[in-house]
Amino acid sequence: MRNVRVAAAQLGPIQKMDSRHAVVARMLDLMRQAKAAACDLVVYPELALSTFFPRWYYEERGDADIWFEREMPGAATRPLFEEASRSAIAMSFGYAELTPGGHHFNTSILVDKAGAIIGKYRKVHMPGHVEYDPARTHQHLEKRYFEPGDLGFPVWRMLGGIVGMCICNDRRWPETFRVLGLQGVELVVLGFNTPSVNSQRSAEGLDRRMFHHRLTLQAGAYQNATFVVAVAKAGVEDGHHCMAGTMVIDPDGEIVAQSATEADELVVHDCDLDATRFGKETVFDFARHRRIEHYGLIASQPGVVPPL
Amino acid sequence: MRNVRVAAAQLGPIQKMDSRHAVVARMLDLMRQAKAAACDLVVYPELALSTFFPRWYYEERGDADIWFEREMPGAATRPLFEEASRSAIAMSFGYAELTPGGHHFNTSILVDKAGAIIGKYRKVHMPGHVEYDPARTHQHLEKRYFEPGDLGFPVWRMLGGIVGMCICNDRRWPETFRVLGLQGVELVVLGFNTPSVNSQRSAEGLDRRMFHHRLTLQAGAYQNATFVVAVAKAGVEDGHHCMAGTMVIDPDGEIVAQSATEADELVVHDCDLDATRFGKETVFDFARHRRIEHYGLIASQPGVVPPL
Repeated sequence: MRNVRVAAAQLGPIQKMDSRHAVVARMLDLMRQAKAAACDLVVYPELALSTFFPRWYYEERGDADIWFEREMPGAATRPLFEEASRSAIAMSFGYAELTPGGHHFNTSILVDKAGAIIGKYRKVHMPGHVEYDPARTHQHLEKRYFEPGDLGFPVWRMLGGIVGMCICNDRRWPETFRVLGLQGVELVVLGFNTPSVNSQRSAEGLDRRMFHHRLTLQAGAYQNATFVVAVAKAGVEDGHHCMAGTMVIDPDGEIVAQSATEADELVVHDCDLDATRFGKETVFDFARHRRIEHYGLIASQPGVVPPL
Repeated sequence: MRNVRVAAAQLGPIQKMDSRHAVVARMLDLMRQAKAAACDLVVYPELALSTFFPRWYYEERGDADIWFEREMPGAATRPLFEEASRSAIAMSFGYAELTPGGHHFNTSILVDKAGAIIGKYRKVHMPGHVEYDPARTHQHLEKRYFEPGDLGFPVWRMLGGIVGMCICNDRRWPETFRVLGLQGVELVVLGFNTPSVNSQRSAEGLDRRMFHHRLTLQAGAYQNATFVVAVAKAGVEDGHHCMAGTMVIDPDGEIVAQSATEADELVVHDCDLDATRFGKETVFDFARHRRIEHYGLIASQPGVVPPL
C-alpha cells in the first residue's frame, strides 16, 4: 500500500474582470479544505489563475500578455506556495508562462510539500487555430498565443510514486499517456478548460464532449495502468460555458470519484499506487508485449500518408 | 456519402470436436444472410475455423499443428471463397497460419468481392504465455503457438475506402490504431476470442472485461476517426466461456450496433466512410497537431524505464 490522498480542486468560472488576487483566494480556500481532509496533493486546473483567455481574439498578440506570468511564484501566486509549505501539502496548477526570452507556453508545475517547484510541463498538443475564424461559434486561439511545449513528457519521483503531468487536449492523444507510461507513471495529473460545445459542430454538445473526455482519460489510465486525476475549470465564463467532469480514474480505467457541480469543489480520493502493479505486470507488461519494430510511423510521420 | 454495408458475423462457440466442414457451413449460412441483407462486407472472428485452441496445452508444440491451415484457401475453406465470389460480397476472417517455411501466425485476411485475397495481417500483440502456468484459472498459450506478426499494420484500398485489420488483443494497444490511422484508415475490422474471466484475477469477470473491450475499441475509433467492426467468437467452448460484444463503432467513438446473443448472429450496419472526415480534418488532423519530436520513446523503447 502506497497511498496518496489526492484532492482534485475544481474551479468554477473565472470572469475576465476577476483579479489574480481573488482567484488565488479561492485556490487557498480549496487548499485549506484539502489540508483539513488530510490530503497529500491538491491539483488545480489548466490556466488556473485567470479566465480561459484563448477564447478572446487580440489582433496584437502582445496585448494578450496581460494573461501571462513572468515569474513563478510571483507576487500574486506567492501565497499559494507559502500555504502549501505551511500545510505540508503538495500541489499542481496550470498557468500561462512568459519566459525571459519571450516564449509563451501553456504550463503546469508540480510543487512538493516544502513549497518548492520540482517539475514543470509545457502543453504539447495545442488545439484550436491561429487566426480569427468567423466560421466558429467561438474562438479557440491557443495556437495563436502559445508555442507547443518543448519539455516532452517528463515524470518525477514524488509522494512515494512516479508522477507525470499533461494538460487538457493532451489527454485526447494516446501518445501522451504512452510516453508517460514508458517511464512507469503511476499518477497523471491534468487540468482542463473544455467548452461544452464544439466550435465547429454545434450538434456536438455537452453529453458528447463529456463522453470523449471520459473515454480518453479512461483509456489512457487503463492502457498504462496509472491513476489519472483530471481537474476542470467549469461553468459560465463571460457567457461561455465550460464543462465540469473533474474526476479520478483508477489504473483499471474506472471512474472512482467525480465532481457534482460546476463551481469550486474539492474531490478527494485515496490512490493506492500499488494498485497500478497488476496491469503493469500482466496485460500491459510493456517489455513482454510491445513490438516497437511496427511502431515506427508513430514517431517519424506527423500526418496521414494514405496508400497509393 | 461512401456507404459500406458491413455484416459483423459473430460465431457462437466451436467445440474441439467440431469439424472444419461444420464450421464453414455455419459461416456460409451467415454469408447468405449477409448477402440477403445486401451487405458489401462480411467480417468473421479471429481463429474463425476452430475452437480457441490456445487454451489447450500441448507439451509437443507440433501437436498443435492440427489447428493450423497450410494453404488458404484449402479444401475446407474453398466454399467460402466460392460463395463470396458468387454473391459478390467481400469478407475477412481469421485463422491459424502455418507457412511453408514452418512459421506459425495468428492471421486474418481481406478477400474482395471477386473472392481474391487482397490483404493479409498477422497478429502483432500476442497475449498470454509460453509455458504451462498452474497459477492461472485457464491457460492462454498464444505466445507458445504463435510468433508475433511480421507484416506490420498495413491498409488497403477497398470498397471505396481505406481498410485495415487487427486481431483481438491488438485492440488494447493504441499503437495499433495509430499506425493504421497514420495511413488514413476509415474502417478497421477485427475478430476476437476473449475469455470472460481474467485468468490471473478471477474477480475481473464479464462486466469488467466487456468494459475494457468497449473502452479500447471506442478510444481507437475516436482518436483516429475511423469505423471499427469488432466480431466475437462467443459462448461456452468445452466449458470455457468467451464473451460476446460484437459491435460496430462510429468515427466519433459511439457504439452504433451490437450483438444480442452469444450464438451465430449477424450485426448489420451502414458505415458512411465520409463520416470519418470531420474528425480527421479537425481535432485529429494529425499533420496540424501531432508533435513527433516528443514521441520518440514509443518507437524506440519496448519496456518501462523508470526515472532515477
